Amino acid sequence: MKKEQYTLIKERALTYFEKAGIVLTSEEKENLEVADFGLDMIEEIGLQICVYINTDRVCAKEMVLFPKQTCPEHMHISSYGKEGKEETFRCRFGKVYLYVEGDGELDCISGINPPTKTTVYHEIILLPGQQYTLMPNTKHWFQAGSEGAVISEFSTTSTDETDVFTDERIVRTPVVE
Amino acid sequence: MKKEQYTLIKERALTYFEKAGIVLTSEEKENLEVADFGLDMIEEIGLQICVYINTDRVCAKEMVLFPKQTCPEHMHISSYGKEGKEETFRCRFGKVYLYVEGDGELDCISGINPPTKTTVYHEIILLPGQQYTLMPNTKHWFQAGSEGAVISEFSTTSTDETDVFTDERIVRTPVVE
Repeated sequence: MKKEQYTLIKERALTYFEKAGIVLTSEEKENLEVADFGLDMIEEIGLQICVYINTDRVCAKEMVLFPKQTCPEHMHISSYGKEGKEETFRCRFGKVYLYVEGDGELDCISGINPPTKTTVYHEIILLPGQQYTLMPNTKHWFQAGSEGAVISEFSTTSTDETDVFTDERIVRTPVVE
Repeated sequence: MKKEQYTLIKERALTYFEKAGIVLTSEEKENLEVADFGLDMIEEIGLQICVYINTDRVCAKEMVLFPKQTCPEHMHISSYGKEGKEETFRCRFGKVYLYVEGDGELDCISGINPPTKTTVYHEIILLPGQQYTLMPNTKHWFQAGSEGAVISEFSTTSTDETDVFTDERIVRTPVVE
């Protein structure tokens, strides 16, 4: 990602935090992470993240998805000798279409199309105030509705660099040129 | 606490979540915890809590303090064979006067008076978007400013019943008659 693109995406993400009534410090705004997953199609596949805290026991983040933007399928495996990440997503603004493994009965009933390789389709819809908890080693992907979404994540330690993505082309750690 | 008082306090707390733009589900509103710490002076000493998630690894809560209401001094010790709770307080609305151990230099410089027994006075002021992380076994107490406060807490597992309070009269688990 070019530095100019990163700056534009960051500024746009900040408007969603404002819509959700979430206050960030100047430093948090400055350091906002824009994850393009190395696929160079940020409008379709990407995630904007503010990490509040990430210690060796606990982590909390705030995330923005632009309208119809997708966080690609992945799971959190054991790493650095610790059990994989357990996380709770709580929708604060907009609408989130979350997909996990299931029995097929609720598979993508809203007709959401994944823009990248996916293997799980059990649909969970989150509106503001609704949340869902994912245990380690659970494949999942999620897409925002047409308004975008702001999602709080409460979890154990984040080690994003060890996440396992279904699309083998993905590079999780953003590179800003 | 009488059931009628509990209901009134709960309704009042919900107006603060609204001010902070935080959306709760009907079930969360219904189950809001009102902690009076067994002291029967809820206006001065109390805390209103919505627990989003509390598993054996991670916990997230949203808390309301009414204007000048104090959460009394306590610490989180090891319990059930696990290290004590590590927690991050993030102010979402209002102002929080937080007190922890220190070298004396910043002791209660804002002139906040504790309504119950306290032994630590190092002052940290949190405005919306500001946060502070407390490690286990750290004594702390906090009071809201004149507008009240809404605080998010990101932490390891909560075992409130094992918290150690400085005021020996305190009973942490609320009793609603």
